[in-house]
Amino acid sequence: MSTIHIVGLSGSLRRDSYNTALLRAAQSVLPDDAKLEIIEYADVPVYNHDVEKHDGYPESVVSMREKLGRADAILFAAPEYNWSIPGVMKNAIDWASRGSDSPLDDKPAAIMGAGGRLGTAYAQQHLRQILMHNDMRVVTRPNVLISHASKQFDEELNLVNERHLDQIKRLLVALVEETERARQ
Amino acid sequence: MSTIHIVGLSGSLRRDSYNTALLRAAQSVLPDDAKLEIIEYADVPVYNHDVEKHDGYPESVVSMREKLGRADAILFAAPEYNWSIPGVMKNAIDWASRGSDSPLDDKPAAIMGAGGRLGTAYAQQHLRQILMHNDMRVVTRPNVLISHASKQFDEELNLVNERHLDQIKRLLVALVEETERARQ
Amino acid sequence: MSTIHIVGLSGSLRRDSYNTALLRAAQSVLPDDAKLEIIEYADVPVYNHDVEKHDGYPESVVSMREKLGRADAILFAAPEYNWSIPGVMKNAIDWASRGSDSPLDDKPAAIMGAGGRLGTAYAQQHLRQILMHNDMRVVTRPNVLISHASKQFDEELNLVNERHLDQIKRLLVALVEETERARQ
Amino acid sequence: MSTIHIVGLSGSLRRDSYNTALLRAAQSVLPDDAKLEIIEYADVPVYNHDVEKHDGYPESVVSMREKLGRADAILFAAPEYNWSIPGVMKNAIDWASRGSDSPLDDKPAAIMGAGGRLGTAYAQQHLRQILMHNDMRVVTRPNVLISHASKQFDEELNLVNERHLDQIKRLLVALVEETERARQ
Repeated sequence: MSTIHIVGLSGSLRRDSYNTALLRAAQSVLPDDAKLEIIEYADVPVYNHDVEKHDGYPESVVSMREKLGRADAILFAAPEYNWSIPGVMKNAIDWASRGSDSPLDDKPAAIMGAGGRLGTAYAQQHLRQILMHNDMRVVTRPNVLISHASKQFDEELNLVNERHLDQIKRLLVALVEETERARQ
Repeated sequence: MSTIHIVGLSGSLRRDSYNTALLRAAQSVLPDDAKLEIIEYADVPVYNHDVEKHDGYPESVVSMREKLGRADAILFAAPEYNWSIPGVMKNAIDWASRGSDSPLDDKPAAIMGAGGRLGTAYAQQHLRQILMHNDMRVVTRPNVLISHASKQFDEELNLVNERHLDQIKRLLVALVEETERARQ
Repeated sequence: MSTIHIVGLSGSLRRDSYNTALLRAAQSVLPDDAKLEIIEYADVPVYNHDVEKHDGYPESVVSMREKLGRADAILFAAPEYNWSIPGVMKNAIDWASRGSDSPLDDKPAAIMGAGGRLGTAYAQQHLRQILMHNDMRVVTRPNVLISHASKQFDEELNLVNERHLDQIKRLLVALVEETERARQ
Repeated sequence: MSTIHIVGLSGSLRRDSYNTALLRAAQSVLPDDAKLEIIEYADVPVYNHDVEKHDGYPESVVSMREKLGRADAILFAAPEYNWSIPGVMKNAIDWASRGSDSPLDDKPAAIMGAGGRLGTAYAQQHLRQILMHNDMRVVTRPNVLISHASKQFDEELNLVNERHLDQIKRLLVALVEETERARQ
């Protein structure tokens, strides 16, 4: 079976984002048959239906949608702002979900998050609902909630806790299994 | 008692937005002791913690926060994208909620929405949770869900259904009462 | 491939329940390779951990769990009380979810509901989260929300609207497909 | 101002319930002007509309509704089962919410919970929505989430952590303030 191509989307644009660091940690514990590309979307503008209608998708959106379209599965790393996912992440999902050729539809997905005491638990609940609206196949176990994020990474933003790395590894295995099942 | 100053925030940047039209409809049925200012925030960029840290709030954010800060109460008109509020609206709330001087904290709020069959019901549930995180006092009755939005407005985007106008009026009365109670 | 055995669980114990009637409607539009057994659980008592610990599962719970255990997939018909599923339905799920041999774990599931204006939309969102906790594979399309339930059934509680029957049929087809996929 | 009468409802019927113990802990840190009565409802049967219609409320329900009706405010202690509140707790709320004389409507409420790692965070989100449907005034700060409950109580189920007791105290103060505000 061919390599499974996972695209990772972090909900934070910050350079030293713990959630982007989680995606890099995921790259270090990938199953043999998978690769993980972290997507950049800082230049995706706020959604405006008039812009879409008159000018079509902005170039940054076209590029993001193409990358998501090539993915066999999507891995979301979600910070929590105001008990939900960041607006910037939702905005990217809104642009991605447009049209009958949405690159999200029916795709396997997994969620992880690094945050405060609850490790982005509330944000992940919202994100699950958002993804289910897109008929994505959301892997739910293990539940990767990295609490007290500032203590879990070293100075170079490597995730140091073996237990966390193992959780992410198991999430990736589940995501790959779901993807292989979807291919059948 | 002095006039109650309500600020209205629409979740759509589209010029012919039904939700922005809902705010204009609200302006037409205001209680005597209230005024309603519709806020513009199309130039608020996507949130980036690095930008905030190094340069402070962008001018558009400063302006939005000032307007929200002068409000006695906030009225949200929420479209629904992907079973949640639009990313662009969440992004504005994220910028507004920053810092210990957030203009949202502890303020009375009300929600309405115009959308498809369910009238943005799912989006409003998410928004209620988002606002509760900010300790806002969310008025919950009546539940203003304008279904099949495209049929409820005339060509100039006036809300034509008397029942809907009456609902909005009652929501505004409840919001004003909550605001007066909060002042005591 | 052998017949797919679906078990239907209604959230209402009422004799003339619209949601139980929805399950009967589902029985009338089943795919050829599926059968649907409607489960009774009116005698399942309110959950009490002390009872479970000292006496084990009550007989009614053992029987319900056995029926769920034999199911290849579960179809939930959910009324909405207080923006969530009925306590009685949640109580049945709580008993069913106990232990490492839970008959819910990892099973395909589908949700429909008949209710007021929103057709139990809020209840279904809660139920999706509850089922995801049990790692159930929740089919999300089509979204069967029967609004204004009292007008949709005839005197013998037959669902009369062809569009609704067709929706239920498509939901069953999706549930059967998901079940066949899970078997591979 | 007269004493504020708070009624406490635990979501667990278990004798050694941590959540019922939380209510007892609340009794030990009450503001001077408040008292807290813990309500028993183990004999409230599962809801059945036919029973309500033909026989009215069962005696146990009448008694529970009377106690809730006398309350100035309600304090909920919510365990988490399946990412939501227990069915038994939802069932009690369903019975309480019936009719135009519901003892819940418009009353101030506060939520706390003792549970696993997340301290019943998901259950509290569901409960907030359930209470908002009843137009209850839900105090949201502080957010009392007692994680790893089994380690937080001594053998006699006294809550031993001063920080937790202080949190509960502040929640009660906020609930009393909300109640006094509602009385004006």
